[in-house]
Amino acid sequence: MEIDYKNIKVIGFDADDTLWINETYFREAEVEFCKLLSPFETFNKIDHELSMKHMEHLAIYGYGIKGFTLSMVEVALELSNHTVSNKTIAKILEIGKDMLNKPVELLEDVELVLQELSKNYKLIVATKGDLLDQERKLEKSGLLDYFHHIEILSDKKEANYSNLLNHLDINPSEFLMIGNSLKSDVLPVVNIKSNAIHIPFHTTWVHEQVGASETNGKVYKTINKLNDLVALLN
Amino acid sequence: MEIDYKNIKVIGFDADDTLWINETYFREAEVEFCKLLSPFETFNKIDHELSMKHMEHLAIYGYGIKGFTLSMVEVALELSNHTVSNKTIAKILEIGKDMLNKPVELLEDVELVLQELSKNYKLIVATKGDLLDQERKLEKSGLLDYFHHIEILSDKKEANYSNLLNHLDINPSEFLMIGNSLKSDVLPVVNIKSNAIHIPFHTTWVHEQVGASETNGKVYKTINKLNDLVALLN
Repeated sequence: MEIDYKNIKVIGFDADDTLWINETYFREAEVEFCKLLSPFETFNKIDHELSMKHMEHLAIYGYGIKGFTLSMVEVALELSNHTVSNKTIAKILEIGKDMLNKPVELLEDVELVLQELSKNYKLIVATKGDLLDQERKLEKSGLLDYFHHIEILSDKKEANYSNLLNHLDINPSEFLMIGNSLKSDVLPVVNIKSNAIHIPFHTTWVHEQVGASETNGKVYKTINKLNDLVALLN
Repeated sequence: MEIDYKNIKVIGFDADDTLWINETYFREAEVEFCKLLSPFETFNKIDHELSMKHMEHLAIYGYGIKGFTLSMVEVALELSNHTVSNKTIAKILEIGKDMLNKPVELLEDVELVLQELSKNYKLIVATKGDLLDQERKLEKSGLLDYFHHIEILSDKKEANYSNLLNHLDINPSEFLMIGNSLKSDVLPVVNIKSNAIHIPFHTTWVHEQVGASETNGKVYKTINKLNDLVALLN
């Protein structure tokens, strides 16, 4: 079954790594963190512990840079056996602030595509993470005018998308989600009989990767670049 | 000019300190933090520095417990002249997690009032702070079914409320906001010619206090307890 584009009324865009670069900044922060803690452990061990801690903390801290920063502090205490210097802790806080202050670097053709699609569709941003942080990025991006509003989802599971459609007051067939994560942007949307298009980003967080069995038999489309959307939807 | 209750379609409830206790937990956390740092400074000085840091950080961290925790860590480093122990840092992280895990303690009559009002009005939660945290509290509260959805606002200024009304697709006269903060829940709403009712909470964060000149000539109603709403709106 193909997507029936003529039904589409609202297009939801994931933000991080779909509209602009994000994952790259987390990777860079991890490298900096590993360097800071290199007196205590190997890079691999530090990176692994941070990744585990971040995932363990998702339930309590949720997504976003503040929770990630708190996780870095906790890992630093633990991996150093509570001997890490105050100076290192201060540097970790700085890593977090630097991430929050990063410039917004748009992915290829984003503005062009939004300009085109906003003529015929209601566009929204549908993202996990922190509202303030995402609003700030949207403002810095210069893309604010193309979007009707931002929807912040505490998670991107089927129930969250069902609530979103309810809230938008549209049927599943009238919604199209665009994003770089099969797990978060595509599969849950397809599972509630709505539509999704996958645009892979060059790095994908290990927590977001899915096995072949999960995608088996699911109908979604993959395109290589955002610009391909215009031909599909016009 | 009185509020014209017969126009009201949507009622927005602030969450923290309007539906359930919140500020009290921040106060308790501050006291714990002051005790932890008492080897370095007086209670008053520590409390003052934390309050200043938290406000300075609002622009970058926004509202909520995670940013507050990061601020506590930073104040601990600074006030101790970078001599605070790792153990104390670990305890600060624990204070933050304890806050996130606090039980939800409803204010008086909340459930009764929501039950009554949900019969005739669309009820929403309109709150600053972290979506995950607020969703968790709403779930714990048992109040989820009374609300159409949660609106997370990155701030509660006039523009945020105008966006909210746009998003809800209603006129200012059709909205009524209920909350404990004059600054966040009442004045900006009244300023965009919508309606608001103030229900004071026994403690109010100093950042949320407003001077008499700001309230002068503004039309809003103050009630002492949530239960008074029912008589007004029925």
